[in-house]
Amino acid sequence: MGAPLLVDNADLSVKTLGPCRIDSPLLPLLGERPTTQHYIDESDKVLYDDTTSMIAAREVALDALPGFEPAGPRRKIYFDPSKTRVGIVTCGGLCPGLNNVIRGLVLELTSHYRVRRIVGFRNGYQGFIARYGYDVVDLTPERVASIDDDGGTILGSSRGQQDPGEIVDCLSRMNINILFVIGGDGTLRGAKEISRVATERGEKIAVVGIPKTIDNDIPYIDQSFGFQTAFGKAAESIQVAHAEATSAPGGMGVVRLMGRHSGFIACYATLAKSNADVVLIPELPFKLEGEGGLLNHLRKRILDRGHAVVVVAEGAGQELITDQPQSADASGNRKLHDVGQELSRRIKEYFDLEGVELNLKYIDPSYVIRSVPANPYDSVYTIRLAHAAVHAAMSGRTEMVVGRWRRRFIHIPIGLAVSQRNQVDPAGDLWMSVLEATGQPPRFE
Amino acid sequence: MGAPLLVDNADLSVKTLGPCRIDSPLLPLLGERPTTQHYIDESDKVLYDDTTSMIAAREVALDALPGFEPAGPRRKIYFDPSKTRVGIVTCGGLCPGLNNVIRGLVLELTSHYRVRRIVGFRNGYQGFIARYGYDVVDLTPERVASIDDDGGTILGSSRGQQDPGEIVDCLSRMNINILFVIGGDGTLRGAKEISRVATERGEKIAVVGIPKTIDNDIPYIDQSFGFQTAFGKAAESIQVAHAEATSAPGGMGVVRLMGRHSGFIACYATLAKSNADVVLIPELPFKLEGEGGLLNHLRKRILDRGHAVVVVAEGAGQELITDQPQSADASGNRKLHDVGQELSRRIKEYFDLEGVELNLKYIDPSYVIRSVPANPYDSVYTIRLAHAAVHAAMSGRTEMVVGRWRRRFIHIPIGLAVSQRNQVDPAGDLWMSVLEATGQPPRFE
Amino acid sequence: MGAPLLVDNADLSVKTLGPCRIDSPLLPLLGERPTTQHYIDESDKVLYDDTTSMIAAREVALDALPGFEPAGPRRKIYFDPSKTRVGIVTCGGLCPGLNNVIRGLVLELTSHYRVRRIVGFRNGYQGFIARYGYDVVDLTPERVASIDDDGGTILGSSRGQQDPGEIVDCLSRMNINILFVIGGDGTLRGAKEISRVATERGEKIAVVGIPKTIDNDIPYIDQSFGFQTAFGKAAESIQVAHAEATSAPGGMGVVRLMGRHSGFIACYATLAKSNADVVLIPELPFKLEGEGGLLNHLRKRILDRGHAVVVVAEGAGQELITDQPQSADASGNRKLHDVGQELSRRIKEYFDLEGVELNLKYIDPSYVIRSVPANPYDSVYTIRLAHAAVHAAMSGRTEMVVGRWRRRFIHIPIGLAVSQRNQVDPAGDLWMSVLEATGQPPRFE
Amino acid sequence: MGAPLLVDNADLSVKTLGPCRIDSPLLPLLGERPTTQHYIDESDKVLYDDTTSMIAAREVALDALPGFEPAGPRRKIYFDPSKTRVGIVTCGGLCPGLNNVIRGLVLELTSHYRVRRIVGFRNGYQGFIARYGYDVVDLTPERVASIDDDGGTILGSSRGQQDPGEIVDCLSRMNINILFVIGGDGTLRGAKEISRVATERGEKIAVVGIPKTIDNDIPYIDQSFGFQTAFGKAAESIQVAHAEATSAPGGMGVVRLMGRHSGFIACYATLAKSNADVVLIPELPFKLEGEGGLLNHLRKRILDRGHAVVVVAEGAGQELITDQPQSADASGNRKLHDVGQELSRRIKEYFDLEGVELNLKYIDPSYVIRSVPANPYDSVYTIRLAHAAVHAAMSGRTEMVVGRWRRRFIHIPIGLAVSQRNQVDPAGDLWMSVLEATGQPPRFE
Repeated sequence: MGAPLLVDNADLSVKTLGPCRIDSPLLPLLGERPTTQHYIDESDKVLYDDTTSMIAAREVALDALPGFEPAGPRRKIYFDPSKTRVGIVTCGGLCPGLNNVIRGLVLELTSHYRVRRIVGFRNGYQGFIARYGYDVVDLTPERVASIDDDGGTILGSSRGQQDPGEIVDCLSRMNINILFVIGGDGTLRGAKEISRVATERGEKIAVVGIPKTIDNDIPYIDQSFGFQTAFGKAAESIQVAHAEATSAPGGMGVVRLMGRHSGFIACYATLAKSNADVVLIPELPFKLEGEGGLLNHLRKRILDRGHAVVVVAEGAGQELITDQPQSADASGNRKLHDVGQELSRRIKEYFDLEGVELNLKYIDPSYVIRSVPANPYDSVYTIRLAHAAVHAAMSGRTEMVVGRWRRRFIHIPIGLAVSQRNQVDPAGDLWMSVLEATGQPPRFE
Repeated sequence: MGAPLLVDNADLSVKTLGPCRIDSPLLPLLGERPTTQHYIDESDKVLYDDTTSMIAAREVALDALPGFEPAGPRRKIYFDPSKTRVGIVTCGGLCPGLNNVIRGLVLELTSHYRVRRIVGFRNGYQGFIARYGYDVVDLTPERVASIDDDGGTILGSSRGQQDPGEIVDCLSRMNINILFVIGGDGTLRGAKEISRVATERGEKIAVVGIPKTIDNDIPYIDQSFGFQTAFGKAAESIQVAHAEATSAPGGMGVVRLMGRHSGFIACYATLAKSNADVVLIPELPFKLEGEGGLLNHLRKRILDRGHAVVVVAEGAGQELITDQPQSADASGNRKLHDVGQELSRRIKEYFDLEGVELNLKYIDPSYVIRSVPANPYDSVYTIRLAHAAVHAAMSGRTEMVVGRWRRRFIHIPIGLAVSQRNQVDPAGDLWMSVLEATGQPPRFE
Repeated sequence: MGAPLLVDNADLSVKTLGPCRIDSPLLPLLGERPTTQHYIDESDKVLYDDTTSMIAAREVALDALPGFEPAGPRRKIYFDPSKTRVGIVTCGGLCPGLNNVIRGLVLELTSHYRVRRIVGFRNGYQGFIARYGYDVVDLTPERVASIDDDGGTILGSSRGQQDPGEIVDCLSRMNINILFVIGGDGTLRGAKEISRVATERGEKIAVVGIPKTIDNDIPYIDQSFGFQTAFGKAAESIQVAHAEATSAPGGMGVVRLMGRHSGFIACYATLAKSNADVVLIPELPFKLEGEGGLLNHLRKRILDRGHAVVVVAEGAGQELITDQPQSADASGNRKLHDVGQELSRRIKEYFDLEGVELNLKYIDPSYVIRSVPANPYDSVYTIRLAHAAVHAAMSGRTEMVVGRWRRRFIHIPIGLAVSQRNQVDPAGDLWMSVLEATGQPPRFE
Repeated sequence: MGAPLLVDNADLSVKTLGPCRIDSPLLPLLGERPTTQHYIDESDKVLYDDTTSMIAAREVALDALPGFEPAGPRRKIYFDPSKTRVGIVTCGGLCPGLNNVIRGLVLELTSHYRVRRIVGFRNGYQGFIARYGYDVVDLTPERVASIDDDGGTILGSSRGQQDPGEIVDCLSRMNINILFVIGGDGTLRGAKEISRVATERGEKIAVVGIPKTIDNDIPYIDQSFGFQTAFGKAAESIQVAHAEATSAPGGMGVVRLMGRHSGFIACYATLAKSNADVVLIPELPFKLEGEGGLLNHLRKRILDRGHAVVVVAEGAGQELITDQPQSADASGNRKLHDVGQELSRRIKEYFDLEGVELNLKYIDPSYVIRSVPANPYDSVYTIRLAHAAVHAAMSGRTEMVVGRWRRRFIHIPIGLAVSQRNQVDPAGDLWMSVLEATGQPPRFE
């Protein structure tokens, strides 16, 4: 996963609201344990690099090697639980596990830190803005007990930014000390703004993000929550496409999967059930025409085997669609052209011209993938992320997100987390396994 | 289920190729059992009527009450297993359970009747026609052992008719004695023609159908195979729509489900997970505009509850779409206008006009529903249907399909099975339960 | 399904508390519809018989043919909804769908009949008895909205009878007018007693049962709720047994399934995934020893194929276990010997003696099967049963259960429902399909 | 996950059969890609350490930091594919994903390396030994195409060692060049012996292992294949236990899960669905009696909440069972006492004594967990592991296993892989999350 090379310890350092002077209420539960954990030593770091060649390239001393702050409970915390008020908000598109994160935050805050007052803001950042008129939701252990049975988010969501000043007004008015923001990169940029404004005003508000991206494109995070659920569900669509393709003469299934900038879902779903013949991802442009083009490859597959399945990430092949205007959604994301429909049209045209029988079925499972409940793995992952986020916030960390780097839970400054995207490395072992599984050529060119 | 009233015993009588004179090879397995079964007495019938009022309306004597021939093994059979050659073909769109039926037929024919030679014809009726150039598939117990793990059909399928003369030529050339046809009403009409031509030519070929309709619209059949799997899968889409609708301000999910002429999938999927606010079926036209129209109802739901889910069967509301030309597919079915898209467009227009916030998500799970493997119930049902079909064919029945009437397996003449459609009875208890579950008004008018 | 022959209309007639004089609040929803439904005519009946031979054997006139009262909403009802108080209780062992029934009752009572006060009694009949000290649970639409996501019963359950006098005391004290009892035959006998005592005391309390039996052994009911979920889940265990058996030399899987007196789960689970080599059910005693005994059959299977799977219903083969004392559980059910363990022991002994390698895995999925949430089919079925039960109770029916006879929802007097058991007919087509699927001999003798 | 600290580069170095001089047939597929991958430089390593404190503790120079050899395709390989013969064997207990590994190996070998002759040995190491008389299985792409649909292993398995000399005799006689061994630590020790004997005899046989452990207890491997499937399935049993416990007065569910030495499945399954009140793992001894003992804790839970769920790993609490003799299975593993049964007995005794009502249900899903097909994640993981194993073997690596260290696929010498066990770190964040999720005290003592 093409991890970037040039961060240094300055990039990785996390802001705090102030020194921690209150004994953590977890001590009786955990006993002396936290102190014995090697990684909870405040001076320790989780190494950024993981190969000898990466380290060698640094040309720095051992003690200057960059690393992330490890997540986990601290012995001393910043906020006095009995006086702490917490807000939670979910923003952007749906992703499996949103309710699990909400539930994890609430249960950890109430059961272990004994925080009494937690509210959910409705419908994303709109929930802070008076003119939308949304009431807040009281989040109690009873209210959240089984919300993880359902997909979606009980708080509602919306796309787009709101004025950070108005948001801080609202937080201030409600005496909120900690704000948990669950959302993608646009949302996290908004969270950074909120934190900035709060700091300018001298408000002690910890803003902690739990990064959400079904595309798995947030850097410095092994795998984003919901991703496994998503690609598992996506694999079902490839199965369906295969069933359709093999059940008709000249059968072809075209499956459009999520992945605006990164083809992770397409790659993993393909590997989960090796029935795809071609995978197209945003990281790798492809040509349709010509001897080495996609169309000719598909023609040969149909003639050789009688059927073919094409998996295409939504962000792939955008360069092929030149006759449609550009626009953007409320989150400010460029609206993608529908590559699945366009591809289907071009394939049909070509097969028609070539006189080869074709039965093309187009499958777009989008909402089904993002709206299902979390699978067991993501249930575990979200609860652990939520625990890490609560520990971070109670210790006064702010303007950061929780993540997992090479299987260690860590803190990442928001600025770094939104600085770039995680993408499939066309020279890495994931893509190589995809090539091996599909048998497609390395490039259509 | 608005069962038709006026059939009589002439309509229900099944053709045979000739008298049964060969001892069934099942006798050692079943012992004297078949003779002790009350319903296997050739003179017995499964009553067509099931209420006293229906019987009273007949005004006939008890022994003239119409009834179906019961399915099941006969002590004497028509075909000599050692010399019997069997063909199987699957036609039309996919439906969960096709591979289970193929498997059930092959296992029953080989394990119990000891038939040695079974072939599958590829890609529907095209498989019989020389110019398509499809080889037949040898169907052995090994080949079919675990095909029920997969959706689709291992034989492939296609829509549309082929010349019955050419088909009988092919059957005759290959010495096929029994042809099992798995398909919908168009396919069964084709099977009737094949049987007619064979009879005219004096060929002793038993043509036995296993009716396939994901819409559950074949009459005289409690529930068509694959239907339970289908509505179970469809219910997942309603869940998804609910998750989407409740996760956004003004959230609305519109789910288009199968159902060209009959709303069974829409009704059952809705009852399976009572998250739908409105169900629209082909049996009940509806108005969009006006006080009692659908749009106003949806507006009120959104204002009252903040979200709404609409389930629409593909054949519903066709009368609303008047500006698009009519066409037909290869099976001769009139191509339906896409009511889901049209409805979504009209709802958006209306909410825009009314100034009510709307976040509409359109979900069309079509292929996903028809291409999944059969669930346990349909696995049982298909194996029992296949057993019944084999017993019928081996005893020389022809131009018939197997079905289940009020939980008894029966024989139905093809002519009767394709004479009309099973539909949701707007005055029956199924629709009433739907109304009770959704709380929608009885009519939008 | 060996339905009994000799009921007459006297057996089938349902008690009522008195004449219905109140307009049903469903009329505005349903409009004139109920009157147009052929079966809701109070004088109509759903025929008990379904074959011409059964009718002929009656030797009665057409209008004397026995039939069940059809279920469904009545135009006039007995109880005034605004003054009606309702109690619900669940008794006996768990079964998929209990929460669905509770939810269906509550939603129908509140949404359509506008009943305001519904309480749940905790832990079965114990919930009525003061000395157990259980509070009642207020059942509102909000409380029950998503309880169908979970298995079990939110009310709790317990086995065994309580004094009917004390129960009626409790109902009377709380002004309960309608009591819904969800439970098996012991529970229903208790319900009959409650109804009897209430009648003796002149209390107008409608006692309506929803029969619960995971074994599908209640007569006059096509299939009991939860049964499909149960056998679908049970089929997974057979898959597991098959995976184990085929993965070891001399691999044998022994799966014990539910079925005290009836082998329906064993039969259906076997047909759902034809990996079983032998099915043993309570209806058919079997011999272990001798040429035609089970042990010799299994030895041959292992030697021929290398593996074997045995499915045994818990009530099968009880006659083999003679060295253990008899006892009974709190419901008064005779405690069964563990036939699965005993069988495994005997098989191991035998293979050891014969010197044939054996790797036997014993699988008993019991709780897993009964505690899972209802599948989509059972979700639909339970909601429709609940609707029928509410209609019956509101119209003043009492001492009855709701059921489905040949796919029509009907009313059955409790006395008849508990008079005998539904069992697998060894001469019927279900068992024949099992024999055909497993290839086992008709009897081990 | 308490990773051990003191390995050095000598421990991590992998044996090879000789220099690689043949161009990899993957070059046309991968183009120049492998050379551009930073990690495939033969001199690069995946760092063993991952925190600055670990590195500091080493007190070595940067270029002496220990690291694993990265997995992946090499430009030059050792074996000439056209002349290479490959054997595959699966040993020990079942684990989800065995068939996926077999399939992945066969497809990679045939599609990309063009190896023609692959055989499977039946029933573990017994398959090499003449006196067992098992034929080998030809493994072709067709044979393995959909074996991943099923749990178990198509090759069969067995426990225990066989004489390594006889095994090498067999490999030699069959001209096998590469042997893939899929199994746990006992099996891998056997593989090491095979490799040793082959080397002594001068046979050039690459022995490459794919470590199998449903308990996730193999060190130097992020997570063993099948583990996610296993804990996901195990979580269902906790759900079931919860449904049972909440449905009866004094309801308690006791679930025994896998985990001889390591409680990973118990911990993850618990976090996946936070319905457990207590988790017991082999890493942490516990006391039953006394104020701080488990029994008293359970009594309080039942009195407070009315129900409780206990999850116990099979290896936990062995010290409590002192009255039963010790024995071992064919693999030489000490047979564990059944802690679930014993615990249930002790709990019942105690509640009886205390006069507290108890309805205890004991659930042991063992076979169900290990025999299910792999979930999508494990499907991806196994295919990538299989690819890595093929690349390693074709390049002449031997006496090694493939693994994944901090998300990098790596090579591990067998000796190191079997040198110790991975266990839950009682001072780590996984166990802390479990404590937070269950609310149990850190120790029962």
